[in-house]
Amino acid sequence: MNIDRIHFVATGGTIDKRYDPLSGQLYIGAPVLPEILARAGIEGKVSEVLKKDSLDISESEREQLAAFIAALPEHQVLITHGTDTMGASAALIEPRVPGKTVVLTGAMVPWSIAGSDAAFNIGVALAAVQILPPGVYIAMHGRVLPHAAYVKDRAQGRFIAG
Amino acid sequence: MNIDRIHFVATGGTIDKRYDPLSGQLYIGAPVLPEILARAGIEGKVSEVLKKDSLDISESEREQLAAFIAALPEHQVLITHGTDTMGASAALIEPRVPGKTVVLTGAMVPWSIAGSDAAFNIGVALAAVQILPPGVYIAMHGRVLPHAAYVKDRAQGRFIAG
Amino acid sequence: MNIDRIHFVATGGTIDKRYDPLSGQLYIGAPVLPEILARAGIEGKVSEVLKKDSLDISESEREQLAAFIAALPEHQVLITHGTDTMGASAALIEPRVPGKTVVLTGAMVPWSIAGSDAAFNIGVALAAVQILPPGVYIAMHGRVLPHAAYVKDRAQGRFIAG
Amino acid sequence: MNIDRIHFVATGGTIDKRYDPLSGQLYIGAPVLPEILARAGIEGKVSEVLKKDSLDISESEREQLAAFIAALPEHQVLITHGTDTMGASAALIEPRVPGKTVVLTGAMVPWSIAGSDAAFNIGVALAAVQILPPGVYIAMHGRVLPHAAYVKDRAQGRFIAG
Repeated sequence: MNIDRIHFVATGGTIDKRYDPLSGQLYIGAPVLPEILARAGIEGKVSEVLKKDSLDISESEREQLAAFIAALPEHQVLITHGTDTMGASAALIEPRVPGKTVVLTGAMVPWSIAGSDAAFNIGVALAAVQILPPGVYIAMHGRVLPHAAYVKDRAQGRFIAG
Repeated sequence: MNIDRIHFVATGGTIDKRYDPLSGQLYIGAPVLPEILARAGIEGKVSEVLKKDSLDISESEREQLAAFIAALPEHQVLITHGTDTMGASAALIEPRVPGKTVVLTGAMVPWSIAGSDAAFNIGVALAAVQILPPGVYIAMHGRVLPHAAYVKDRAQGRFIAG
Repeated sequence: MNIDRIHFVATGGTIDKRYDPLSGQLYIGAPVLPEILARAGIEGKVSEVLKKDSLDISESEREQLAAFIAALPEHQVLITHGTDTMGASAALIEPRVPGKTVVLTGAMVPWSIAGSDAAFNIGVALAAVQILPPGVYIAMHGRVLPHAAYVKDRAQGRFIAG
Repeated sequence: MNIDRIHFVATGGTIDKRYDPLSGQLYIGAPVLPEILARAGIEGKVSEVLKKDSLDISESEREQLAAFIAALPEHQVLITHGTDTMGASAALIEPRVPGKTVVLTGAMVPWSIAGSDAAFNIGVALAAVQILPPGVYIAMHGRVLPHAAYVKDRAQGRFIAG
């Protein structure tokens, strides 16, 4: 249950979105993981592998992400990821990481916006990655389930247990 | 791993502190648990048992808290509590709750103040209470340990694994 | 210098933008004026006349806004407005409101997003509308100038004194 | 109406209070003026003259503050100050600054705490200091009045026009 055994991986997604006053649009900024961890008195190893809205992740980029996770020496990996294709990344990662516990999380509201669920979700994922047996999980809305059992319902804007 | 199986219990502490403009002092306000859960899309059963700085909890109040937890029908209980005597409450609760998983958490910085660790800590505790076997645990700084193994060092202002 | 003599008018714009988790887009929500005023211990009369990105305000809507301002019994009017066509609305309003002090303001970053200038800008505009002689002014970046002398440079994303 | 002509002076007070997790107490931190101005796209000259709860300002310190304001080359001075003795400082400053416009402001809730009035109040004061004729004024709750006409009612926790 040592934080040093965990690798944090940022890929972009809603959690990292910020507002650009010039364009009036949201864009994906630097990972919010370090700031959220620091508030809780934690320093963690954070790697930024992608910086994408998850709908824009190509298959080769998803392969690159899976290869990166597979090659990590750590057996506990927490990934921040856009919610729309979180399940697709999880499915690709799973066969590559026997013996590892991988938890994907993200946010419905960007960390930069009032009322964000980002810090809470990372907390949920961080506990789960330290406790759960090997496997690839999704942590959202206070629940942590094997990825194939927790699917985003885009009409409702939330994950539903299958 | 159903949220309905969890009972949330607020006892006051730093996490619930707010600012009173008249006196210029911090006081313990209504529990922040409902707002933090709502941001993550969760509705939970929240009971307010005490509303105290944990240094001001009397032994009879601590007994009352332990009795309340023991009497709950739920087997998963998340308690928000001041950090200074979180360990004392955990020690008193433990022999009363065989078969239950109880996780205590709180905050080093009030939820109402910029840079608070409150939402993150409740996320950590919420995952832990759903996954860990029966026992009484403390969740702070991203770690969840059996209460006797995780003790607050007041000089450093953080919990240290014993 | 009585707050009761001021009429507050919301028309939408960046200041009122909020995040929609379903679409991942920003939309114009309820006016933020009442919340910002309440924080400062002020209750004000707020009318919502439009709810538009200012690039989407039609000429007939701009006429409707000018007519609304002209018809108000108050001689001090503070308008929140999108920055892109704030000057166009000011120019249309000016000939209709002899004897009135009208100050338009808005925000470069929505009130709902970290680092917003909204509360500050409304403070600047509120002081100005109480002190300045009749005329139509723009208040942004801590300055208050007659509208024709303070023009948005969209490349720089700020107002420049002409 | 050029920002360069204004000197900003911080003296501490509620506006600058922050939370110390070790002691659980609020303390007076670095001035918040630069951050609040930066959000609005403004750079200003900020001097920190005192760093005190205004109830703890001694008469010699108040003299020192008045002498500092009197010696400034700028004719527009915005002072952030604790609310409890804002009036006493204003009264001492007034005879020393003929020809200058001095506006004192502060906050009922620290900038570091949710719901603060700090940014709004500084906005009000900044407009006022640029527009009003020479004199010493207090800006709070959206109003700006000559200091002797605007007195803090400590029971109500707000300034009342005399």
